[in-house]
Amino acid sequence: MVDRKSPDSATQRAIHRKRRAPPGAAPGTLVADPTAFQPAIDVIAYGPDSFEEIEIGNVEELVPMLGKHAVTWINVVGLGDLDLIRRLGEIFDLHGLALEDVVNLHQRPKLEEYAEHAFIVTRMVPDGSSSPAIEQVSMFLGKDFLLTFQERPGDCFEPVRSRLRSSRGQIRSRMADYLAYALLDAVIDGYFPLLEALGERLEVLEDRVIDWPADMKASEIHAVKRELLLLRRAIWPQREMINALTREALPYVSEQTRLYLRDCYDHTIQLMDIVETYREIATGLVDLYLSSVSTRLNEIMKVLTIIATIFIPLGFVAGIYGMNFDRGASPWNMPELAWYWGYPVVMGLMAALALAMLYYFYAKGWILRRGRTRSER
Amino acid sequence: MVDRKSPDSATQRAIHRKRRAPPGAAPGTLVADPTAFQPAIDVIAYGPDSFEEIEIGNVEELVPMLGKHAVTWINVVGLGDLDLIRRLGEIFDLHGLALEDVVNLHQRPKLEEYAEHAFIVTRMVPDGSSSPAIEQVSMFLGKDFLLTFQERPGDCFEPVRSRLRSSRGQIRSRMADYLAYALLDAVIDGYFPLLEALGERLEVLEDRVIDWPADMKASEIHAVKRELLLLRRAIWPQREMINALTREALPYVSEQTRLYLRDCYDHTIQLMDIVETYREIATGLVDLYLSSVSTRLNEIMKVLTIIATIFIPLGFVAGIYGMNFDRGASPWNMPELAWYWGYPVVMGLMAALALAMLYYFYAKGWILRRGRTRSER
Amino acid sequence: MVDRKSPDSATQRAIHRKRRAPPGAAPGTLVADPTAFQPAIDVIAYGPDSFEEIEIGNVEELVPMLGKHAVTWINVVGLGDLDLIRRLGEIFDLHGLALEDVVNLHQRPKLEEYAEHAFIVTRMVPDGSSSPAIEQVSMFLGKDFLLTFQERPGDCFEPVRSRLRSSRGQIRSRMADYLAYALLDAVIDGYFPLLEALGERLEVLEDRVIDWPADMKASEIHAVKRELLLLRRAIWPQREMINALTREALPYVSEQTRLYLRDCYDHTIQLMDIVETYREIATGLVDLYLSSVSTRLNEIMKVLTIIATIFIPLGFVAGIYGMNFDRGASPWNMPELAWYWGYPVVMGLMAALALAMLYYFYAKGWILRRGRTRSER
Amino acid sequence: MVDRKSPDSATQRAIHRKRRAPPGAAPGTLVADPTAFQPAIDVIAYGPDSFEEIEIGNVEELVPMLGKHAVTWINVVGLGDLDLIRRLGEIFDLHGLALEDVVNLHQRPKLEEYAEHAFIVTRMVPDGSSSPAIEQVSMFLGKDFLLTFQERPGDCFEPVRSRLRSSRGQIRSRMADYLAYALLDAVIDGYFPLLEALGERLEVLEDRVIDWPADMKASEIHAVKRELLLLRRAIWPQREMINALTREALPYVSEQTRLYLRDCYDHTIQLMDIVETYREIATGLVDLYLSSVSTRLNEIMKVLTIIATIFIPLGFVAGIYGMNFDRGASPWNMPELAWYWGYPVVMGLMAALALAMLYYFYAKGWILRRGRTRSER
Amino acid sequence: MVDRKSPDSATQRAIHRKRRAPPGAAPGTLVADPTAFQPAIDVIAYGPDSFEEIEIGNVEELVPMLGKHAVTWINVVGLGDLDLIRRLGEIFDLHGLALEDVVNLHQRPKLEEYAEHAFIVTRMVPDGSSSPAIEQVSMFLGKDFLLTFQERPGDCFEPVRSRLRSSRGQIRSRMADYLAYALLDAVIDGYFPLLEALGERLEVLEDRVIDWPADMKASEIHAVKRELLLLRRAIWPQREMINALTREALPYVSEQTRLYLRDCYDHTIQLMDIVETYREIATGLVDLYLSSVSTRLNEIMKVLTIIATIFIPLGFVAGIYGMNFDRGASPWNMPELAWYWGYPVVMGLMAALALAMLYYFYAKGWILRRGRTRSER
Repeated sequence: MVDRKSPDSATQRAIHRKRRAPPGAAPGTLVADPTAFQPAIDVIAYGPDSFEEIEIGNVEELVPMLGKHAVTWINVVGLGDLDLIRRLGEIFDLHGLALEDVVNLHQRPKLEEYAEHAFIVTRMVPDGSSSPAIEQVSMFLGKDFLLTFQERPGDCFEPVRSRLRSSRGQIRSRMADYLAYALLDAVIDGYFPLLEALGERLEVLEDRVIDWPADMKASEIHAVKRELLLLRRAIWPQREMINALTREALPYVSEQTRLYLRDCYDHTIQLMDIVETYREIATGLVDLYLSSVSTRLNEIMKVLTIIATIFIPLGFVAGIYGMNFDRGASPWNMPELAWYWGYPVVMGLMAALALAMLYYFYAKGWILRRGRTRSER
Repeated sequence: MVDRKSPDSATQRAIHRKRRAPPGAAPGTLVADPTAFQPAIDVIAYGPDSFEEIEIGNVEELVPMLGKHAVTWINVVGLGDLDLIRRLGEIFDLHGLALEDVVNLHQRPKLEEYAEHAFIVTRMVPDGSSSPAIEQVSMFLGKDFLLTFQERPGDCFEPVRSRLRSSRGQIRSRMADYLAYALLDAVIDGYFPLLEALGERLEVLEDRVIDWPADMKASEIHAVKRELLLLRRAIWPQREMINALTREALPYVSEQTRLYLRDCYDHTIQLMDIVETYREIATGLVDLYLSSVSTRLNEIMKVLTIIATIFIPLGFVAGIYGMNFDRGASPWNMPELAWYWGYPVVMGLMAALALAMLYYFYAKGWILRRGRTRSER
Repeated sequence: MVDRKSPDSATQRAIHRKRRAPPGAAPGTLVADPTAFQPAIDVIAYGPDSFEEIEIGNVEELVPMLGKHAVTWINVVGLGDLDLIRRLGEIFDLHGLALEDVVNLHQRPKLEEYAEHAFIVTRMVPDGSSSPAIEQVSMFLGKDFLLTFQERPGDCFEPVRSRLRSSRGQIRSRMADYLAYALLDAVIDGYFPLLEALGERLEVLEDRVIDWPADMKASEIHAVKRELLLLRRAIWPQREMINALTREALPYVSEQTRLYLRDCYDHTIQLMDIVETYREIATGLVDLYLSSVSTRLNEIMKVLTIIATIFIPLGFVAGIYGMNFDRGASPWNMPELAWYWGYPVVMGLMAALALAMLYYFYAKGWILRRGRTRSER
Repeated sequence: MVDRKSPDSATQRAIHRKRRAPPGAAPGTLVADPTAFQPAIDVIAYGPDSFEEIEIGNVEELVPMLGKHAVTWINVVGLGDLDLIRRLGEIFDLHGLALEDVVNLHQRPKLEEYAEHAFIVTRMVPDGSSSPAIEQVSMFLGKDFLLTFQERPGDCFEPVRSRLRSSRGQIRSRMADYLAYALLDAVIDGYFPLLEALGERLEVLEDRVIDWPADMKASEIHAVKRELLLLRRAIWPQREMINALTREALPYVSEQTRLYLRDCYDHTIQLMDIVETYREIATGLVDLYLSSVSTRLNEIMKVLTIIATIFIPLGFVAGIYGMNFDRGASPWNMPELAWYWGYPVVMGLMAALALAMLYYFYAKGWILRRGRTRSER
Repeated sequence: MVDRKSPDSATQRAIHRKRRAPPGAAPGTLVADPTAFQPAIDVIAYGPDSFEEIEIGNVEELVPMLGKHAVTWINVVGLGDLDLIRRLGEIFDLHGLALEDVVNLHQRPKLEEYAEHAFIVTRMVPDGSSSPAIEQVSMFLGKDFLLTFQERPGDCFEPVRSRLRSSRGQIRSRMADYLAYALLDAVIDGYFPLLEALGERLEVLEDRVIDWPADMKASEIHAVKRELLLLRRAIWPQREMINALTREALPYVSEQTRLYLRDCYDHTIQLMDIVETYREIATGLVDLYLSSVSTRLNEIMKVLTIIATIFIPLGFVAGIYGMNFDRGASPWNMPELAWYWGYPVVMGLMAALALAMLYYFYAKGWILRRGRTRSER
């Protein structure tokens, strides 16, 4: 099982988190995860002219707050208290299947439409994370409320909160649908730094493959491909989800917000576009790496072959004149050894042999020919 | 033919089970399979306030039971008695083509709509099985009955039965469509442990490819890819089938159950998503394995080349001075042998040659250069 | 051109049969194929209570028979007599383009709808053929007749004929559309044994690649892939054709027969499914084969490198002490040769060198390390 | 730029012909191509009972001829005279963009519908050409005229002309739409001989890869793949174009001609089908070639390894006893040399070493094992 | 970050430009880019009979000009002054999201429809650039105005400006939609020279791979593939964008201009077609390169194997007769050395051995067999 305390290293590898509910369990069964964070509830309620932000300890404190402002955003951080989640389900009249999906952290991003609210699942890169340790965020979007669940403290919503607090932009004068858009936009934008980092890693790898392949391992390219695969798996359904938000005639999503969601949808398309481009480049890199390895093998073998091909025959010639045939026993036994010019002739023969071999390799283009100018060809 | 007694080992390999009906046979022909299990019939009949569970020996005992409770679930385990199956066809007015598909165990999961009932084929991982020994389950879903056929004892429906017995959840207060959903959900959930096991095998293989490629065989990756292929083939049509169930306006599938089926459909999409991700990772592993093999070959050849390139020329030099030219016959015949510093000079020459070679390899980056720091580049 | 007398060996290779009509010929031109069989005409006419089967020699004998029974099935075996085909075109009012397609044996399976009849082209595996020597069958389906053309004697329709003769099943009480379905079903079912044989070949190849790759050739896998490619090309359009039959509102195809055609369509999907699975397995096998070849090359090179790396330096040492420097000329000339322990020390040195090399290879994991247990890692 | 005088060799390579109009030029600009042929105009005018064929020198001679017969086919051969083309544009009221496309010879096949005529671009294999030197043919199809432009003399329309002259078939009794069909059909049929030639080249390459890979170059397969790629690029849009002709409700294309166009469409699908099959076979061939190269490398290395592994250790042993240790200086200095059985024992030792190595290679299956029968396994 | 001053070298590599707005910023936030050019505003206003072209320094000078002529084209070169862009947004009533996209230079080409204008993003190859340093061009198309933004001086619009100035073609008599078409057409046409250059590089690479693979690096093919990938990413969405322009019923795009846009759309399809063809050729080149490397390795190894296999055994034989066994100690110690024909026999033996090896290699086809004629096979 994935150790959720150190997500950056652990979930980077995990492709698939274990489901907690046993196969065949009744639908809507919430199963406790002993490692889950104990929840904290942050409530931000606001209208064009009002703003209130409190952290509540008990879920019952929430009930009187609802409806007092134009929009109430309840953010639950940590999924460790199933009673709290069930109680929220009662307060906002949420479907059991949706609550089950909040707790089971293996959902694909999706939009589910219920009578009184929309259920949105998305996957967020926690702020400052440099690995694709993607965290599930669940949202229930109603007419005047937005209920969000995240797995643990640390998110990418701080800029939205500060816009709410300082009433920057138009966010305070809009309804809950615009808040949901603002959060989704922050989620989507949070993928860009991750992709930029991957892009830089790819370019460094590319340079290294071209310059110095022995220095690197194919597994480094494999690691980047794998992260791109996981990112793609996280982003692809977001695109569908936001597209569904744009198209479906949800009663509490205004026409104006739809325009913003279209912009957000453009960003997911950009993300997918970059991911696909990176994937193709990474695939090209694997090919390039294999070519480099093969080319270097060729070079290694060329060196071996040149040396061996020159010196093995020479060694053989030397070996012949190292034989101990008894020159006294026969005039045919190695008379060369006693010739006046015997040694110089043999040495010259060897040199000629070596030069012939070198010329052969030169003619084959194995040596010295590399830097030929175009005109020679 | 596949030995159906030991499915875990046999069907793991089998891509395609033999069809029993000869080509050109009349449609609806039921052909006996001598290795099929003799059927046992389990009946569970229930309503919101009633529950009855019996195992019946003779199919005629079934007739008086029908209609007594809100829902009757007849589960036939084993397909060895064609008469029984034909009689059930008569009792529930089933189409001959559907009955033929019950007996021919090579069906793709599908939904077929008939006037009075729907015919559903799905493929189940028997409980506790660790191999994709996937078993065909056929269901006839009517207004107040569900008739299911499975190949042999052992299924993944036990949690559903226990929910029925203990009246846990809402299952007893719903109709047969909800029961069918509960069974399909159990079937789909049954694939997750299998996929988790494959995911773990993949991660182990990944580590091994990176750490120690000589230790492993490409056929291990091939085996995982093959199982993923079979799983994909089993899951892909389930997705279509459940989607069809969600969309088709079947008279006896209520709007509420459709909501649950949509959740079940989400799970099949998750399954496909994981299978596809695993397949891509496995494909990446094959590339990585090939790269590793090539890289290791490079290393092996480097060792050979360095040793051979250093020692073959040295051996040649030694060979020269092992020649037996008759120094007495000519002053040109190997006078070096009698020089005062002859031997030390030759030894020094050899050492210089070896050092020159080593420097050449160092300059090429074949030796010692591996751990260069970034700043050196 | 393909020798049509020995289809099993010849057409197995042929991807594309030559068209007989020259480019630019008028549409509807029937061109004689000198190697085509002389036609024989088998007529089976039947109704619920009547049955007649004759072989007629002259096409004019056919005219009085039409309409006497509920259904008349005219099966023309051999396409060597263009006049006969033209006369049949007149009798049944067939379009010239359709007749051209009957004679040109390179058609893809298709359905063409004409006012009074449907023109169906399909491709059949002749009974008992073990190679994909696929033969074109053309059908004209009218209200009360079915006119079929096949290339040569030998087909897969015998079980249908015997069902007609013995009035087994419901075939005699149905119209021509059901007969067409029965023939198409026989055609589709005829592909299963071929695929099973290919599946077995694939499994044998798989075992061989894993066990003993030197024993096999990549061309064997290539041959299977090629046959799968040809099968896929034959089956894929059949699927479309049968699907078109199911959907198009042809006046003489009853609703009931459509149900049977849906079953037949399921079978083509199964066929495609198996073909695609086999293709993926074959592709995986090619990868596995390449991995095996590379791995074996690694092993070969390891043996060479170990032997050469140990013995080449040793040989060099031996070479040094084989030099003939004149020890009398100088005290520096190879004094070792006269040392008391000279020979044993050199031998020990060599042994130490060899052991050092062996340890180096052991440390690199090239020797003896293969069977490490998990705990060692 | 492509030398258009020798299209067979030049355009075979050229993937993309240079556009003549500079970027940003006003739409409808006709730019002269200095290498274009000077046009000749062939006019064939006919009706069911009349036929006239003349070659006119001046375009003004054309005006009085129009409307005199049921159909007038004006075929312009050569695009070197822009004034003529502009004048034809005025006579037939052609759109400037269409005229631009006539002159720019890089158009994809397409159908453009204008108020009074359809503009068809297709790509033709000139008759007798054995390379994919594909030539652009532009057609303007009106109610009673067909205006065609081809790049240079030599086309595949001769059979159509001869059918017109001899009034063979129904062509004279039909309108201009049927003539356009007849020309398109001739164009499409012209691709079949080219594909057959490619198929034969592929089969020859396949045999050569299997039999004798050293004899061939990968670039031969690459060349076939490249031609298939160019063919596919030429054929694919023809399919769309003819399909558009079949579907679009063009006022001057009769229902009857549509039936013929459907047949022509079938032929383009057949072409694509063959091209795709060939492409897959060619891709398989590349894999097979690579496997063959690897397998042969394995064999080469096996020979080297066997020889080196046997003789290098033997050479070392011989080297030892070639050392010149002074046996007089010590009883430990190579006493073996003076043993009575010294030499035979060493020779025997060497033989034993060689046999041990041979047995090792035999046990590894590197020698003699290749032709094992099945039963041995 | 990309240095925008030298786009040709820098952006050639950059796959993804950094986004300037921080994640979570309010939508519509314009963020200054310190490296952006200070804007210059060129205004061209014209009607059928009037023409005015000025460069204005202050955006307020623009207001009185609007509406004076039929069409006003305001071209803003440089995006360094956000106040100016905001003021233009007010003057033309532009949406904040669109203005944000003008400044963020990572947009995919797209069409966004607003009430009073259309927002078009396209990507242009600056004139004369030989690298895919693609620059973003944003356009707001209204009824009587066209507002364009480009990143820096230098564009591909000069031919359009000169047609406007000289009133060449119909451009002055048309509305703003035709001007937008003319600019888009210039943008699209600007890709052709780039693609032609890539095509030529591909052909040179192809020749080099076939002729002289050692001369080249796989990274050169990789570089072309990468540029094609970036081009594809730039062109693909242009196609969609222009298609949307053609289909959407924009109130200020006339039917006539739609006809021209259809032509422009054809050009983007041609571009994509060429890009895809080039990509396939490049992929084929990678395969071919790998084949060549493997084949050359085979050749290198053959040379090594032939030389080593011939000379290592010979060297061993010579080594044997270099052993110093004491012939005086035993008659069995190397009696061959004293034989009368000893030396010639050994030399003959060696020659025989070498010839046998050579014949073996000849029989294997490793030497001399290459140029076999067809008839020999």
